[in-house]
Amino acid sequence: MDDRLKKQLDFALEIDKEKNIFRQTHLSGHGRNENDAEHAWHMAIMAYLLREYANEEVDIAKVMLMCLIHDIVEIDAGDTYAYDSVGLTTQKAREDAAKERIYSLLPEDQKAELIALFDEFEAYETPEARFAHSMDNLQPIMLNNSNGGADWREHGVSAEKVYARQSKTRLGSEKLFEVVDGIIRENIRKGNLTE
Amino acid sequence: MDDRLKKQLDFALEIDKEKNIFRQTHLSGHGRNENDAEHAWHMAIMAYLLREYANEEVDIAKVMLMCLIHDIVEIDAGDTYAYDSVGLTTQKAREDAAKERIYSLLPEDQKAELIALFDEFEAYETPEARFAHSMDNLQPIMLNNSNGGADWREHGVSAEKVYARQSKTRLGSEKLFEVVDGIIRENIRKGNLTE
Repeated sequence: MDDRLKKQLDFALEIDKEKNIFRQTHLSGHGRNENDAEHAWHMAIMAYLLREYANEEVDIAKVMLMCLIHDIVEIDAGDTYAYDSVGLTTQKAREDAAKERIYSLLPEDQKAELIALFDEFEAYETPEARFAHSMDNLQPIMLNNSNGGADWREHGVSAEKVYARQSKTRLGSEKLFEVVDGIIRENIRKGNLTE
Repeated sequence: MDDRLKKQLDFALEIDKEKNIFRQTHLSGHGRNENDAEHAWHMAIMAYLLREYANEEVDIAKVMLMCLIHDIVEIDAGDTYAYDSVGLTTQKAREDAAKERIYSLLPEDQKAELIALFDEFEAYETPEARFAHSMDNLQPIMLNNSNGGADWREHGVSAEKVYARQSKTRLGSEKLFEVVDGIIRENIRKGNLTE
């Protein structure tokens, strides 16, 4: 087997480990914790189906690929819960080291391409990055809402913190932010989020 | 919320159930059984990274979407193991009923689009369908090989049956069929596949 193909297959096998990185979000039906690969799969399909609500025109193939790869760094860096203020301070350094190690398994051109795509996602500066982030926010709030806000209750999360995160959903889609806003208001009313 | 968006979100929540459909394949590192959502995520990324090996030019966005949605019907129909000869006789009828129920949650245009994409995948007639099937075959054999062929040993699978299935990998990619062929030969030699 030539070196290029071997590298691509080594990377393909390595990312299998993303299925063992578990998040704070639980599956619908009061299921188990969700893992990063499932979350990414769900986001990519949602991005495709909801692309008409993006604020700006997006290259949907690019958004989908961004969704699929955005958590690969967590194989080494672990999942950082959106409301874990301590973990958030070291997240960038942990993810930078992970990015270098994992994407270096690929041939140089594909390493450069996927790192650029991940960096674009992180930077929030393009329509694709903004819409992918809207999915990253909408997907777990949808699951959590289907479970009666159980993930928020478990961590005593405040409405203010959820709004701080979800304000960025608005950058990708005003329409989907309305959905999120409705979910947050309902969960405040029900006492699932502290005020 | 308008009816169209409500339908799209109802579908998005419904497909969360795909994360509970477990396959015979085990994760690398002798891990637990893999589920359909993880398998689809893995296939979509592999399709993107390995697209240069497709026998024919493919619309890679279409291939990726095909990979992502190809097992949604299994939410109702369950996973049918590639070497379960009894289950295979009823697979089509079970999947047709599932397809109608699940995709009917979507607005009509998106229902029609995703059913057409699923049917195209099943029909093996386009370059995209053939390459997506190559991924559907390569991804589990890669994991199983990483675990010393344990899934084959558990089910007493013969090399003949693996070749019958993997012969279709060749329709999508001669180059990746060479990889698969090498894996099968090695596992025959090691006694993980019966001759």
